This record gives sequence, C-alpha cells and structure tokens, in this order.
Amino acid sequence: MNIINVGLIGAGTVGQGVAQLVRKNSNIIFEKTGVRINLQKVCDLDQRRQQVLNVDKNIFTKNANDILNDPAIHIIVELIGGTSQAREYILEAIKKGKHVVTANKALLSQKGDEIFQAAYKRNIFIGFEASVAGGVPIIKVIRESLIANKIKNIFGIVNGTTNFILTKMEENALEFSDALKLAQHLGFAEANPVFDIKGIDAAHKLQILASFAFNTPVEFKKIYYEGIDRIDLADIVYISDLGYRLKLLAIAKFDKASRTYECHVNPTLIHRSSPLAAIKNEYNAILIDGDATGSQIFYGKGAGALPTASAILADIVEISKKIINNESKFYDRFYSHQSHIKMKDYRDTKSRYYLRFGTIDKPGVLAKVSGILGKNNISLCSVLQKETGQKVVPIVMLTHESKEADIQDAIKAIQKLDVVKEKPKVLRIEDTI
Amino acid sequence: MNIINVGLIGAGTVGQGVAQLVRKNSNIIFEKTGVRINLQKVCDLDQRRQQVLNVDKNIFTKNANDILNDPAIHIIVELIGGTSQAREYILEAIKKGKHVVTANKALLSQKGDEIFQAAYKRNIFIGFEASVAGGVPIIKVIRESLIANKIKNIFGIVNGTTNFILTKMEENALEFSDALKLAQHLGFAEANPVFDIKGIDAAHKLQILASFAFNTPVEFKKIYYEGIDRIDLADIVYISDLGYRLKLLAIAKFDKASRTYECHVNPTLIHRSSPLAAIKNEYNAILIDGDATGSQIFYGKGAGALPTASAILADIVEISKKIINNESKFYDRFYSHQSHIKMKDYRDTKSRYYLRFGTIDKPGVLAKVSGILGKNNISLCSVLQKETGQKVVPIVMLTHESKEADIQDAIKAIQKLDVVKEKPKVLRIEDTI
Repeated sequence: MNIINVGLIGAGTVGQGVAQLVRKNSNIIFEKTGVRINLQKVCDLDQRRQQVLNVDKNIFTKNANDILNDPAIHIIVELIGGTSQAREYILEAIKKGKHVVTANKALLSQKGDEIFQAAYKRNIFIGFEASVAGGVPIIKVIRESLIANKIKNIFGIVNGTTNFILTKMEENALEFSDALKLAQHLGFAEANPVFDIKGIDAAHKLQILASFAFNTPVEFKKIYYEGIDRIDLADIVYISDLGYRLKLLAIAKFDKASRTYECHVNPTLIHRSSPLAAIKNEYNAILIDGDATGSQIFYGKGAGALPTASAILADIVEISKKIINNESKFYDRFYSHQSHIKMKDYRDTKSRYYLRFGTIDKPGVLAKVSGILGKNNISLCSVLQKETGQKVVPIVMLTHESKEADIQDAIKAIQKLDVVKEKPKVLRIEDTI
Repeated sequence: MNIINVGLIGAGTVGQGVAQLVRKNSNIIFEKTGVRINLQKVCDLDQRRQQVLNVDKNIFTKNANDILNDPAIHIIVELIGGTSQAREYILEAIKKGKHVVTANKALLSQKGDEIFQAAYKRNIFIGFEASVAGGVPIIKVIRESLIANKIKNIFGIVNGTTNFILTKMEENALEFSDALKLAQHLGFAEANPVFDIKGIDAAHKLQILASFAFNTPVEFKKIYYEGIDRIDLADIVYISDLGYRLKLLAIAKFDKASRTYECHVNPTLIHRSSPLAAIKNEYNAILIDGDATGSQIFYGKGAGALPTASAILADIVEISKKIINNESKFYDRFYSHQSHIKMKDYRDTKSRYYLRFGTIDKPGVLAKVSGILGKNNISLCSVLQKETGQKVVPIVMLTHESKEADIQDAIKAIQKLDVVKEKPKVLRIEDTI
C-alpha cells in the first residue's frame, strides 16, 4: 500500500493550509508520484479548529500524545511554533521513529543542531523547507541543486512583514509607525510585531541558510541583527534620491582567504538597478552566489497558508517516496561538525555605509565630521547637504568600503561633537548584483 | 567505497566545465555528501581536447564504446548534442545499466518519451536538470518542490541569446542584425544562430517544462514557435513608449475548465513593472504559477560552462547517493501516459495583442482598419499614431483579449487593403505578474 499517514500538530493558519492542500491536491500528488497522503490525526488545543479545518471529529484531538503514540502515523508535522513544547514533540517523534516536517525557524535556528543530531542517530528525516521563505524551495536548492558550488554570498529578503512596511514607506510616503499599522490592518504584520521588525525572524532564517550553505552549525547567538523600527521616512527619501532602495537583508558571506564567514541582518541600501530592489510588498527573494552558478535569485511568497503548505507537502512527499521504496537511509547529512571555518567578528566586517547626521548650521561643521571620518580610515564617495531652513540640518554621506569597527569608533566620536544634535544614522550598502 | 565513476561523452564547452568543476569542487561535494566523484573516462572525437581538459592521456578516448563498455562506470554524461548519435549512446547506456545525465534539450524534447520509457523499464535514472536554464534548478523545482501544486502558468525567458539581443536592441538602439552581430562577437550567439533566434531552442525547453508541469508527454511538433528575427527597432521603441518591454517567452498555460493546455513561444510584450521585464542580457528567468504557491520566479545564468556543469554535477550527486545507499529504485515517474488532457489548438488560444500597420496617410484609413478588427470581435484598448512626415505612417494598436484565430483572420483581411503598404506586425501581450 502506498498510503502514508500524517499527524498534524498545530492547526493555526499554516496547519489549516496543510489540511486544505491535502484535500485539494492529494489526487494530483498520487497521479504524479503514486503516494497517497492521508491526514490521520490533527491536534490543536483549540477544539473549535476541528470545524475550521473541516475534518472528521474522530481524527481531531487536543492531546499531542494521541499522535506521537499512534503506531500508524509515519510523519509528524509540527506547526505549533515556539521553542519549548515544539522541541519536546519533535524529539519525542524522533524517538518513536517518526519522520518530522516543521516550519519552525525559531526552533531550528536555536536547537537545530540538537534535533538534527538526534535525527541522524535514529535515521530520521527532518523536513524544514517551509522554515525559510515559505513556498520558495530555497533549502532544497542549497542542499541539493547547488551541491557542486562553494557558496560565496547570500542576500535574502526573507521577512515579508518588513519588506511590506519598507515598500509602503517609500510608495505611500509613510512613517514607520503608520506603515506598520497598515501592515497590521492588512494582515501582513502580527499584533506583536517584534520578531519581524527587530530583524529576529530574518536572523533565524539566516542561521538556517548559512549553516547549510557553509556546511557548519552557525551559532544563532553570534548573529548580529538590526531591524527597521528606527528607519525614518526622511532616510527612505534620501536613499531614493541617491538611486538606492532600502531592504532588510539577511546577509551571509564567505571569505575564502581567511576561511571565515560573516552573518548579519541589516536594513541595507541596494542600488535600484538590482533585481532585488524590485522585490516589493510581502514577497521574499533570496540571491545565492555560487562559485559555479554565479548569482541566482529565487522569488515568491514567503508566508501564507497555502504557499507554506506547498513546501510542507513537498517534504512529506519526499519522505513518503523513501518509505514506499523501502529505502534504508532517511536522514541526510545536515552539515559538518568537523569544519574549521569560523564566524568573523561583526566589527571586522566591511561594507560601504550610508551616514546621516543632524547638525547645527554653522561654518566648519562638515570639516569636523569629515575630519573624524578621515582619521578613522573612512573615505567618502558622496555627500548630500540640502538647505532646509531649519535649525538642525541633515548631512547625508555615502562611504567607500570601510571596516565596521572604524565606523563605530568614528560615530562614537562624532556623536560627542556639540554641533551634532541627533543620534547619527548608520546603514549599510551592498552591491548585490 | 563511496567512489562513483563517471564517463563523459563530449568535451566541448560544457564537458570542459564538468571536468573543471569536478577538479575544483569534488572535495566540497565529498565533505557535504560523502560521495567521491571520479572522472573515469572522457570521450571526444577531437584529440586536442585531452590537453584542453587537462586530463590524463589514459582516461581520454575517441571511442564512446570505451565508456559504454567500461563496467566500472556508473554514470554516463552525454554532452555531444544532436538527436541521432546522442540518442543511440543514451539508449545503449540504459541497456548496459548505466545511469545517464544529459543537457540535450533537442533530444529530450523530441525523443524524451522513448528515452524515459526505456529508463523506466530498466530502473535507470535520467538526470536532465542542465537541459533547461543551465544552472537554474527548474526541473527539480517542478518535479519535487512544487509537487503539491497544480501548475497554472509558466512564463520562461529560457534563451539567453535572444534575451541578450533584445536587451541590446533596446539599450543601444540597434537593429536586430546589428544586435545579433554584437552577440556573436561577445560569444552570446553561435555562428549559426538559427536554433536560438527562430525560437526553436526555447520550444525545446518549453516541451520539457510543460511535460513535467502538466504530467503528460507534450508533442514537440505541436508547439507553435516564433522567433525574434522579424523584430524591428521601431517595434522596440513603440513598445517602450507604451510602457512595455519585449521578451521571447516560452509560455504554457493550463485551462482547468476544458482540461486543455497551450504551449507556444512568442516574442511577447510584458509590462515594465513585471519582475520578468527586469531580466536582462544573457540571463534566464522562469515564472511558475502554482495553485498553492502563487507566482514564483527562478533567475540565473541559463548557459555557460560552469553554471551548466553545476546542474550536471547536482544530478550526478543525486544518483551517487542512491548508489551508495544501495537504493533499489532509481527511476522516478517521469509523467503520466494515462492523462486525458490535450493541447489546445494555437488558433483557439487567447491573448492581448500589439499590432503595427504601415499605411498611407489618407482620411478613413484608421476607420477601415479598425472596422475589420471590430468585425472580427477584436476591441482596442489603445491606439498610437504619430506624425512622421513620411509616406507610409505607422499605426500601433493594443487590443483587449482576443482569439488568435480572429486576429489571424483580421490581419489577412487588413493586409488586402490597398492603403496598407507593409506586412502587419502582430505580437502578443502577457500580463505575467
């Protein structure tokens, strides 16, 4: 028999998408692969979701153990989120010999190594395509399609909420707080948007991408991240005037010479001619630069019930084919633990920078600011100072490539000048393609 | 032992890329997968290529049988191109129980069904990721990542040569013949460019994409294709004025209601705001619209030695893992032969259209032309007629959605008008996203 029984733990938006997609497209999956997906049991603490899901009463339970202990279930789909209960369920499923599919980036970015090692030991498949960029198959691309590449750079727009907010700030000339409200109103931001707007969600996804791209378990707590909640509309306007666009980028780079890599999330200026600059609203896009392929971009919806369910079902089908073909090996190597490459200290990374200072309008100010920059090895490639008629005037500067440590030191010194009246703005610039 | 022996037949550009990439990155493949790729033998009729390849004399041969008959070889890589000899080698390899990797879209689009059926019967893996869009992993995306989707539309810029020519026509204001010469000079077009500029290469790739997307063997000879060799710079300029850009698109659409699909290659107007319009020069991009994922775009270099070799090695590694894990099933279902869906007659397809007429400048001409269009159920959404001071004046029109048959009938009638002095230009418009 080719029936594969799936147990779903968590019936929120994505869980409902999975149930819906199984109902809608299990026939086409059967036609294409010979695999018949059966939703055997669904668990959620909220009894009302049985009706929302439109599933039989008999398959709905409020107790996850009913799924974990069901010997007929081959695959557990964990969709409750969070890092505590979800971790326990997944480890328990592995112990019970059940394969696991999850969309839980928070968990994987922090406890992935523990989970992958447990799975490896028990010959268990962990599917996590849905954890990064929703329906865009970026995990499979990195782990399989680009296997013959040394990956040099990753630039990812991997958080739909912040991309939506930045798009609306520019297009509708909104301040951050108003764009956030709009995003919440339209369902693109959660009531508590902290994980998204602070860059934490993007950092979770970056941890996963970089670990597989560089074949080493990246430590989440070492990843520097910065959100978009301090971006002013004024910055968006200057950036646009300069021919750039601001995107929250998850950035990973490999430095061949020193065998180190860098991983950080920054609101980043990219040139308007870059294909990444054209990625608008809630869409995600990930640029991966391999030494054989050159730059490739993968674009699509990074969230939502059905796109995410599509990735979950792709993982389910992959495991199912292995079960049906009586394959003996289910796990795949996740990444190497023997690797000697290290993460570069964020202060040692280099970039071009956008700087904005609010200074009083008085002779010699520009000389003082640029003097400190020069002393810290920072050279400028453009300066923008407009007449405003206000007391505090903005000076916007773009630098040549500089070291983060030098920028931080210079900014600290410039902030102490009595002519500087606002906290300086520092943003990175990336020449993606 | 985890050594997998590969025999390479054909050591042209791509074959050289494969040899180079094995040398460069086989260590990283080993680290990530435990698979050691060994280039066991290389065959080419041109003895000089042994030195170009920088491989040992002992592994170079001019006789493909040395590879086909070598019992140590697990995988054959066919890179000689063409549809005759290549077909024989592949069928012979299958008979001998060797797995096959090929980049040969011409062969697969015309003899794929024969090859896939032979492979299926002998439990042989056929890898052909490199046959469409070079290093962009579009085959795996369709066959695996989007398995839970009904695919609704495909819009592909899958021919780098024509995309390069169209980009240069627009950016450098060149006529087709000059842009072609430039492409040839820079190595983006072959000395004999017919396959590319006539749309044949794009049709080959479309046949492969559509067969797997729609799960049915599409008949290549039924695919309508049109190239870019009749495009004038004047068209490029009008199209740009109208807010569009011209791209050679491989188009496949599924019509749920009638269970029919359409497949055709056309120089196509797409709106400048579409992400596909931003794909320039030799780059490829494929938009796939699944019912669960919505529109996704996959972008990268569609040709070249190393990008193509990257796709070939990904296939080799996939087969190698199966060999090493002692898996019993190598083939995957290719597509269904039980499918009852049919290709729609090209004349029954619908589109919006760009029409350009060269008429004499005289009262009533516009009325005559638009009268015939109206009689054929074609309604206009914009008309552009500029003063030129010349005897023959251009009238450019964009239509609402119309039936191809109606357009063909109307054009035939309009061409007979004595006020029409040039062969009318007809181009399709697609609202991709």
